[in-house]
Amino acid sequence: MNAPIDIARMLQPRPVPAEMIAALKARFGDRCSTARAVREQHGRDESPFEVPPPEAVVFAESADEVAAAVALADRYAVPVIAYGTGSSLEGHLLAVQGGISIDVSRMNRVLRINDEDLTVTVQPGVTRNQLNNEIRHTGLFFPIDPGADASIGGMAATRASGTNAVRYGTMRENVLALQVVTASGEIIRTGTRAKKSSAGYDLTRLMVGSEGTLGIITEVTLKLYPQPESVSAAICHFPSIDAAVKTTIQVIQLGVPIARCELLDANAVRAVNKHDKLSLREQPMLLMEFHGSAASVAEQAQGVQDVAREHGGEDFEWATTPEERSRLWTARHRAYFAGMSANPGCRTVTTDTCVPISQLAECIGLAVREADEAGLPYYIVGHVGDGNFHIAYLIDPSKPEQRDTAERLNDQLVHHALKLEGTCTGEHGVGLHKQGFLIDEAGVATVDMMRLLKRALDPKNILNPGKIFAL
Amino acid sequence: MNAPIDIARMLQPRPVPAEMIAALKARFGDRCSTARAVREQHGRDESPFEVPPPEAVVFAESADEVAAAVALADRYAVPVIAYGTGSSLEGHLLAVQGGISIDVSRMNRVLRINDEDLTVTVQPGVTRNQLNNEIRHTGLFFPIDPGADASIGGMAATRASGTNAVRYGTMRENVLALQVVTASGEIIRTGTRAKKSSAGYDLTRLMVGSEGTLGIITEVTLKLYPQPESVSAAICHFPSIDAAVKTTIQVIQLGVPIARCELLDANAVRAVNKHDKLSLREQPMLLMEFHGSAASVAEQAQGVQDVAREHGGEDFEWATTPEERSRLWTARHRAYFAGMSANPGCRTVTTDTCVPISQLAECIGLAVREADEAGLPYYIVGHVGDGNFHIAYLIDPSKPEQRDTAERLNDQLVHHALKLEGTCTGEHGVGLHKQGFLIDEAGVATVDMMRLLKRALDPKNILNPGKIFAL
Repeated sequence: MNAPIDIARMLQPRPVPAEMIAALKARFGDRCSTARAVREQHGRDESPFEVPPPEAVVFAESADEVAAAVALADRYAVPVIAYGTGSSLEGHLLAVQGGISIDVSRMNRVLRINDEDLTVTVQPGVTRNQLNNEIRHTGLFFPIDPGADASIGGMAATRASGTNAVRYGTMRENVLALQVVTASGEIIRTGTRAKKSSAGYDLTRLMVGSEGTLGIITEVTLKLYPQPESVSAAICHFPSIDAAVKTTIQVIQLGVPIARCELLDANAVRAVNKHDKLSLREQPMLLMEFHGSAASVAEQAQGVQDVAREHGGEDFEWATTPEERSRLWTARHRAYFAGMSANPGCRTVTTDTCVPISQLAECIGLAVREADEAGLPYYIVGHVGDGNFHIAYLIDPSKPEQRDTAERLNDQLVHHALKLEGTCTGEHGVGLHKQGFLIDEAGVATVDMMRLLKRALDPKNILNPGKIFAL
Repeated sequence: MNAPIDIARMLQPRPVPAEMIAALKARFGDRCSTARAVREQHGRDESPFEVPPPEAVVFAESADEVAAAVALADRYAVPVIAYGTGSSLEGHLLAVQGGISIDVSRMNRVLRINDEDLTVTVQPGVTRNQLNNEIRHTGLFFPIDPGADASIGGMAATRASGTNAVRYGTMRENVLALQVVTASGEIIRTGTRAKKSSAGYDLTRLMVGSEGTLGIITEVTLKLYPQPESVSAAICHFPSIDAAVKTTIQVIQLGVPIARCELLDANAVRAVNKHDKLSLREQPMLLMEFHGSAASVAEQAQGVQDVAREHGGEDFEWATTPEERSRLWTARHRAYFAGMSANPGCRTVTTDTCVPISQLAECIGLAVREADEAGLPYYIVGHVGDGNFHIAYLIDPSKPEQRDTAERLNDQLVHHALKLEGTCTGEHGVGLHKQGFLIDEAGVATVDMMRLLKRALDPKNILNPGKIFAL
């Protein structure tokens, strides 16, 4: 087992000189704040860690402003952390080495909709819901949907995905081009609006998932998709988690182009029922969605229903109106908060493993047995079509032994997933929490290669230092 | 216009010490060759450039052997160039700085077929046709198909694509994991068999498309796809290139999941007819393929036929038997050689621009007008569903003015494509030929970032030096 994460050891504050704060105030006026409340809001995220906040927060309104702030940080060798909506689950926003936060949430304009090319260019503070609202009139949509209404910049930085990834891919597949502020405060562009390219190193995908450690994303060009002619959502209940997972595996192996395939265990269904006033049957279920022409949707659904039945799944319950579908998916997206609010005062330790699809039943099965044996409350939600699932262990923060148990379960699960040729994080990123797991997964030599890249692009280690790996 | 490529200026031979040759012979025996014929065969590719060959060729049979050869090259600071099938179009294999060639074509085993996960792991010398032959019994296939029967290692290194990319993506989307020998001769792994991951920097995609300049690929794990239940190929003739292209644009904008959508102009059809003894009507045509269930294939084809008719396209001619389809696609893949053999003794200068789909008609239209005005023979083939097309200008190598004209046309076309937010290379890579275009496309600061990465991972500049950019 990896040693439990020791946040205290990660704290290496690098003080911000008064001269730099003065320079920021001169440049940004009252858009540079040192107020405690503002700093504290920017010094936390959805992770369970608590560290001192950044020393100042700059509210940037353009790439030039981000570049100006980073250029100052470069001059004084001070850490900078970009802030979008604060929905990281892995401590990405925590100022473990001090420094300043650059809040890009005011950079929230949809810059160019190229509907005839199925692309859109946005500022990093645009959120996924805002984007879909602003492009709805074009008949296109952007599918990537982490649970939170995250910012597009943050989603690119953590290589986020969500429920639609099984069909539409993740941020890895859906970012075409970026504008990035480098560690020296220079503004560069990567990629083009062409759908494919062999023009040199794939800097776009190097930046996607780099968690703010190689550059600050100031513009994102995304792929869009035509809103499907027909959409149907269905629920199917199963006698066991195993039956639901085995159904999923077979659906993927058959190549059914299912758009969403989400597992909720009975605990998750119970939490969602309570939180969203739904009356779903409280047993394991798959929540699915089919996109395509009317005929294709019918064909896909029939295929999946046949497979489900073989595994003891019941007949589909359909949600065909947009309102019903929206209610179900909103509930699914809120499952994390629903689980927490079902146990007031609790915190969660959440796993994010992803394994090759054939290994999913074994991986979830073992995780369930171990969680049951340990006796902690938990619930499971999963983007199972991708082999990705989350167990949230609910812990009482006043009882450190519960935290230890949850961390032990997480550790066992991750190492099991790695043995099955999976990954320690399907979509949340490494941040502070998974640095040991990353080494277990990739090996020291591979992480050393990442360190070489980091040192090359950020020689003063000012871009979100202390995340992904220790230097 | 960029200065015409000056190969003489790129030649910076770094002699290989006799001691190193001796060490290679001691390690590899007669699998290290210094015979002129062997060296010359490894010192050229399908590009029109001629430079002195490498000083030795090592036939590696394992990753350990590649690592051993690279470790020696590191010790003596000698260039190494990996060689698969020699089908590069951009001079990737040319030893402009001398050194040795590491031939990986004997590393040609399919290592692990995980059909239940839709993945396969292969050695780099496996070719795309070999791979599909060896996995056929599983009911799966690998879609990426550059014209040549290239090696999977080379395809990964150049971020290759081909006719199926419009539906299945390129090597960028279809490589899950790699084993790579680094510049110091260490063997590392990137990625896992999980479908998605947020675990640290995306080294897999940094290596894909790096043209052998950041590491030598010794193992590739790929995504596979179920062979579609139903496949239909169709030809549609159009009164003009413009009509064919406009049909394509509309098909893509409608979101039809077409599997292949290839343009051949009348010149290409003529060459293919002659070379492959076909009797296709010699006017612009789209060669298309539809994958899916029988119902879905019929629906897609009907949709495309409706669009084609609006643009003056004729009724589809169907090729439904596997034999007919295979004949057509083999002819398409051979178009490059067909075009050359139609003009004995000629060479080609081939463009590879890719633009946002809405700009394709304008981009091809201008290219055709300029080629017609210039009076050089040419033909056009295009993966038009992706916005990617190739004009091959046929030149008489004994007439330098033809070469200059072709290069001028290429230059104009690339700069026009860049203005339309496209890329200078959709799938062939930068190699020697497009280094100026890469700077025009990405900007000096972005190429400088690539240089920083190169220096970090290959401080002695031994991995395929002189390709993509000058250091």
